[in-house]
Amino acid sequence: MGKLYVVGIGPGGYENMTLRAVKVIENSEIIVGYTKYIEMIKDLIKNKEVISTGMRAEVERCKKALELSKDHVVSIVSTGDPGIYGMAGLILEMRKDEDVEVIPGLTASSAAASIVGAPLMHDNCNISLSDLMTPYELIKKRIELAASGDFVISLYNPKSKGRPHYLKECIDIVKKYRKGDTPIAVVKNALREGQEHKLFTLDSFDDSVVDMMSVVIIGNSNSYIKDGVFITPRGYKIPQ
Amino acid sequence: MGKLYVVGIGPGGYENMTLRAVKVIENSEIIVGYTKYIEMIKDLIKNKEVISTGMRAEVERCKKALELSKDHVVSIVSTGDPGIYGMAGLILEMRKDEDVEVIPGLTASSAAASIVGAPLMHDNCNISLSDLMTPYELIKKRIELAASGDFVISLYNPKSKGRPHYLKECIDIVKKYRKGDTPIAVVKNALREGQEHKLFTLDSFDDSVVDMMSVVIIGNSNSYIKDGVFITPRGYKIPQ
Repeated sequence: MGKLYVVGIGPGGYENMTLRAVKVIENSEIIVGYTKYIEMIKDLIKNKEVISTGMRAEVERCKKALELSKDHVVSIVSTGDPGIYGMAGLILEMRKDEDVEVIPGLTASSAAASIVGAPLMHDNCNISLSDLMTPYELIKKRIELAASGDFVISLYNPKSKGRPHYLKECIDIVKKYRKGDTPIAVVKNALREGQEHKLFTLDSFDDSVVDMMSVVIIGNSNSYIKDGVFITPRGYKIPQ
Repeated sequence: MGKLYVVGIGPGGYENMTLRAVKVIENSEIIVGYTKYIEMIKDLIKNKEVISTGMRAEVERCKKALELSKDHVVSIVSTGDPGIYGMAGLILEMRKDEDVEVIPGLTASSAAASIVGAPLMHDNCNISLSDLMTPYELIKKRIELAASGDFVISLYNPKSKGRPHYLKECIDIVKKYRKGDTPIAVVKNALREGQEHKLFTLDSFDDSVVDMMSVVIIGNSNSYIKDGVFITPRGYKIPQ
C-alpha cells in the first residue's frame, strides 16, 4: 500500500520547513515536483527517485504522483502552503481512492510579512493577480471589496509579462479607499536565496521592482512605518 | 548584547514547528509566553528560565520580554504565526532600540485547512470575530464584503462566552450571498492534542460545536465536498 503526501516546503529555505515536512520527505521513496522546487530541497533528497516537470504541467504532475502512490510512498512538493494556491486542491480533485495527506507549510504572505515587520496583524486577505484561471474583472472586484472593508491585502503572483499593468491598476483601486501614506511592502524571494524587500506608500509606490517571485502587502487604514518597520496595530492600549 | 525573537510555534504540536523556530528557542536563554503555550513546548525548554503569564496580560508580557532582551537572548512564543493576530505587532509597536526578529509559524487557517482537504485554494481572507479591539459593526461589514466578493473565509476566535451569537449572525450574512450547500468546516485544536473536525453546509451548520479553540472555514461559490473532503477548485481543467 502506497501513500501520497502533498508537502509544503514553505518559502524554500530548508530551515523554514516544518519538522513534519522534512520527515515525510525523508521517508518517501519518490519525490515529484516542479524542477525549481526540487532544486530547493536537493540536499534532502539525495539517492531518491525524483520526477521533476516544468511549469504549467500541474495536471500531468498530479496524475503521475497519484499513479505512483498506489504502490509507493510519494511526496509531491511545492513551495509555500500546498493548501493556498498550491497543489492540494488539484490532487484531491483528481484523487480516486489513493491515500492522500496534506502537510501544510509556511505560506508566502507569512514569510514576507515576517521580513518587513508585522503588517498582517489584523483582518487580512490573500488575492492572486494571476488571471490564468480567474477573470480579471473578478480579481478587480475582490481588490475593491477588500479595500473598502479595510482588509490588509497580500497580493500573490503580482506581476507577469503577460499582464504588466494589472498591479498598477489594482493599486489605483486601493487608492480610492486609503490615504496616500498607507504602507506597501514588496518582498522578493522571502526567506530564501535572493531575498530583497522595499517599503513604499500608496503615493510613492513603484511597480517596476515587482516580479513574479514577489509578494506585495498593502496595509490597512491604521498601518504605519516606524523606524523602517511596517506595523499594523492590533489595537492594544500601550502605556506611554 | 541581547536579542528578542518573536517565535511562532505553529499549531502547537512539536512536529509542525519550523526547524528555525526550534533552533531559536533552543538557543534562547529565557522563554516568555502565555502559560498554555509554554506548556506545549515544555520538552524543548527544560533547564531554561521561563516566564509565563496569564491570558490578556499581553502588554505586560511584551514589556518584560523587551526589557530582558537588552542583556539576554529571549524568545517570546505564541501559537500559530506571531504576525497574524499574534504578538509581533505589539512587540514592534513597543520596541525602542531592542534587536527584534520575527520567526513565522504555521497560522491556524493553514493548519485547519490541511485537515479537511483544500478549502483555501483560491482568494481567501482571515477575519477574527473577537470584538475586544474591533467594533462588531466593522466585523460584520467585513463578513458582508468578503461574502459578496466570493472569498473563502477563515474565522479566527469564532466564539466566546461573551458573544455567543456573533458566529450565527455572521453565517446568516454569508447566506445572503452563497448557496445553502456551500461547505463549512469547523476544526478544533488543529494539528495538536484534542484535534476534532466536522463538516457542514451553510444550511446544516450547527454552531454549538464551535468554541474559542476552533477555526471555521466557509467555502466560496465553487467549493464542494467529495468523499468527506472539502475542496475549493483552483480552476485547472482536469481531463476525465
